[in-house]
Amino acid sequence: MTLFSFRRAWWIVFLFILTTIPPSLQHNRESITEEEVEHHHHLFRNVLIIMFVLLLLNILTAWVLRIYHIVIVHETGLAMIYGLITGAVVKYSLPPEEQEISKACMFTVKNDNIPAILHATIDNKTCAYGLLNVYDTDNPDLPQPQLVDMLIFNSEIFFYIMLPPIIFFAGYDLRRRHFFRNFGSILFYAIVGTIISCFVISGIMYGYVTKIYPIPGFKFVDCLLFGAMISATDPVTVLAIFQHLHVDSKLYALVFGESVLNDAVSIVLYSAILTYSPDMSESENGFDGAAFFELLLNFLWIFLGSFGVGCLMGLLTALISYHDHFHDKYLSIFIIISYLTFLIAEAFHLTGIVAILFCGIIQSHYTYKNLSAESRTRTKQTIEMISFLAENAVFSYMGLSCFVFPYHRFYMGFVVFSFIAILTGRLCNIYPISFILNRARQNRIGYRLQHMMLFSGLRGAIAFALAIRNTSSKVRQLMFTTTVVIVFITVLFNGGTTTMMLRWLKIKLVLDIE
Amino acid sequence: MTLFSFRRAWWIVFLFILTTIPPSLQHNRESITEEEVEHHHHLFRNVLIIMFVLLLLNILTAWVLRIYHIVIVHETGLAMIYGLITGAVVKYSLPPEEQEISKACMFTVKNDNIPAILHATIDNKTCAYGLLNVYDTDNPDLPQPQLVDMLIFNSEIFFYIMLPPIIFFAGYDLRRRHFFRNFGSILFYAIVGTIISCFVISGIMYGYVTKIYPIPGFKFVDCLLFGAMISATDPVTVLAIFQHLHVDSKLYALVFGESVLNDAVSIVLYSAILTYSPDMSESENGFDGAAFFELLLNFLWIFLGSFGVGCLMGLLTALISYHDHFHDKYLSIFIIISYLTFLIAEAFHLTGIVAILFCGIIQSHYTYKNLSAESRTRTKQTIEMISFLAENAVFSYMGLSCFVFPYHRFYMGFVVFSFIAILTGRLCNIYPISFILNRARQNRIGYRLQHMMLFSGLRGAIAFALAIRNTSSKVRQLMFTTTVVIVFITVLFNGGTTTMMLRWLKIKLVLDIE
Repeated sequence: MTLFSFRRAWWIVFLFILTTIPPSLQHNRESITEEEVEHHHHLFRNVLIIMFVLLLLNILTAWVLRIYHIVIVHETGLAMIYGLITGAVVKYSLPPEEQEISKACMFTVKNDNIPAILHATIDNKTCAYGLLNVYDTDNPDLPQPQLVDMLIFNSEIFFYIMLPPIIFFAGYDLRRRHFFRNFGSILFYAIVGTIISCFVISGIMYGYVTKIYPIPGFKFVDCLLFGAMISATDPVTVLAIFQHLHVDSKLYALVFGESVLNDAVSIVLYSAILTYSPDMSESENGFDGAAFFELLLNFLWIFLGSFGVGCLMGLLTALISYHDHFHDKYLSIFIIISYLTFLIAEAFHLTGIVAILFCGIIQSHYTYKNLSAESRTRTKQTIEMISFLAENAVFSYMGLSCFVFPYHRFYMGFVVFSFIAILTGRLCNIYPISFILNRARQNRIGYRLQHMMLFSGLRGAIAFALAIRNTSSKVRQLMFTTTVVIVFITVLFNGGTTTMMLRWLKIKLVLDIE
Repeated sequence: MTLFSFRRAWWIVFLFILTTIPPSLQHNRESITEEEVEHHHHLFRNVLIIMFVLLLLNILTAWVLRIYHIVIVHETGLAMIYGLITGAVVKYSLPPEEQEISKACMFTVKNDNIPAILHATIDNKTCAYGLLNVYDTDNPDLPQPQLVDMLIFNSEIFFYIMLPPIIFFAGYDLRRRHFFRNFGSILFYAIVGTIISCFVISGIMYGYVTKIYPIPGFKFVDCLLFGAMISATDPVTVLAIFQHLHVDSKLYALVFGESVLNDAVSIVLYSAILTYSPDMSESENGFDGAAFFELLLNFLWIFLGSFGVGCLMGLLTALISYHDHFHDKYLSIFIIISYLTFLIAEAFHLTGIVAILFCGIIQSHYTYKNLSAESRTRTKQTIEMISFLAENAVFSYMGLSCFVFPYHRFYMGFVVFSFIAILTGRLCNIYPISFILNRARQNRIGYRLQHMMLFSGLRGAIAFALAIRNTSSKVRQLMFTTTVVIVFITVLFNGGTTTMMLRWLKIKLVLDIE
């Protein structure tokens, strides 16, 4: 039987169809519903196509840039720019018909709260709808193209699917980064530095919104939230460049460790402030000791709880790794347990990102050592690949959201003051803490390294994730827009000039282990 | 700097917070919205937790079963049973409060069509909702717990995320399976056999719904659609057992090849019939040559188009694999291109499953050979892992949907006749085609192998996927329920007794390459 029978078979198919088709084929009235169901599938599919074409474009362009040794635009910056362009094209090129359909389904529901699932009876069919986003009503251009709405719904996917692998890999990769040698310093920078940064930023912004340019509805709690979210520095961009350039290993360890743990601290701060905010109604004015104590307890509970969940689940994988009965399924089990760490921490109202970070650190410390050489390589490569894809997706999505998100509130003064605030916050973080640390450290942190740490405090995915999780009020929308602008400028400017800065500060570009 | 400074740092944090907290913290009214946004996040999170705990349970139980050499319940059957139990627990254990909320948001919209995105003004906030599902209205217990609705929304995820990797891996793995040695026979079984099966089944069912037990609204087109969807046999379960037992390689090649390609043919048939159905309105009675010719063209266009897209994208990866500049990103690029194959084919109204299948076959034939030994292992292992996870998720989801899907229509007679129909269809497929093939083949297909092929025609993921894509009408709901029952019984019964059957038919259980 050769390939030739392929052709023969086709003729038999034709003949067969000709003889089998029955005489009476009746009209099917379901076709309209069929089309409607298909339409929804198409929306979902188009979103997927946009995301995956963006991913492919990024990787291929980064490849070409690397061949020609162009390092001005980094992969993450590239992903953001591509996302930005795609967002603009999608938003402004969609036909007006789609907008008509969307406008037709505006209606008002009287309900005490906003349900997550809505049942609407349309055309004698009952349709279940899931909440995608909540906006303020007083914006005139509300109903927008359906594809755009579908793209925004990804904020859930962003937080639950794209972010965890990046953070997990950051934790898993810490071992190689001289992390534990500088553990004390890193922890000090991360915890004390982030808290300083958060309060300095919120102080400056509170001054701005009350004294210089009053924004109604902007409470001190909002300033605190903004300070916490914008204090999270991004480990991805600068470090990808550092790695590429084989920078001084101490700088590497400090910057990487600081930016990873600082994310954890700022997320915990954010959550603690959020839980604390309803209690402030009790003390309209003046300092409330009880409420403050609660904030403190919250911070401790969320941090230690997330740390505990992460460590426990990490140790569970270490236990499983002793049994080598099902080595071919190891990787699947590790990935599932690590991801469950994130979800379980979230279910306990802790922060999943912090839990999965520590789960990664524990795994790199214990589980990794139990694995065979082959399993180690395989595990690391697979996690690295997933993280790489997620990272690209995250920055593409950030670019995309710039045009696609419909309720941007851009206040020039607020943005400028935010920049002043984050710079001040960073100054009050790096230099004083380095000064204190240098009194204890034998191996001092030089001024050049301090300048470089100041410079590499760019904002990225975590700040964005905290900002996009809730954009329901005007204040939140203002905070979101400002965060997007800060992320864009710092990633493109600081990310693009890191090489220049390293050269200017005369920091050694070879890997030397002290 | 040792770990000791960790404790010191904590005290500084405490002192710092104590001195930094400002005197006036005002009431924040956004807290209600905050909770609502969180509530929606929680739903999404709970669905993820359910799915991942199910996955972990499956893998761990399968591991324990393998240690004790229990092969009666296969992994896929296990996944279905676990899913079934979880679905029942979720459905019947949820508190009535949640149902109250859901009932409160029933309302009627007058609109010509069902929009994919709905904007509702609730409590002065505008909320964007995305369509999850469409049902008929005359069912009394309509609003159900929100979590259940969230679980159903996965039918989109099922088709677009879980299914493609399984089919891709099936194609990618064909090379090892003596597939091309028996290519002619496999193609003949797949194309002619599936078409025979489809028309035999639809003929019997049409006889049932018109003569024996008339079901109003059940048109001949519906019978054809049902015939096409239920003709797809599942490659996953039986072959996992075959592989485990090292069965005769010819049987392996025939059963695996047939079941993989037969999926492709039945999906194409289904799509062709779907596109054809609106045209039938023109010919109320009697055979319409033009409409039939269109069905034929459709079948050819969809099959050849999907085949073409798959081959082109597969060859693209082969071209890229010649360049070894970015070998560390190969795997990401292959995965993205393969997945885009699926999406692009869907965008051209072809069938993505068929395209990704052929993309996998082409890659295993050309791209694979260009890779280094290390890349080959890595690529295969990664794809295998993704496929393994997806397979487990698919069967868990099938089990889950059994209780969670709210509009089951179980007609005993319809189910019994469906079993008679699929058995007859399988009989008319295997034996006549084997008879024809044996006249051409030098290496004959023995009766025992034919019996075994008849037995291993169990139904699985593809039949389920085609059935769940549209459950908007009563006819479709009946078809869906029947498909679920058939999938359950064949997977559990045929899957569970395969070993027994092989022993009974005295089929060699060692790998002998002829």
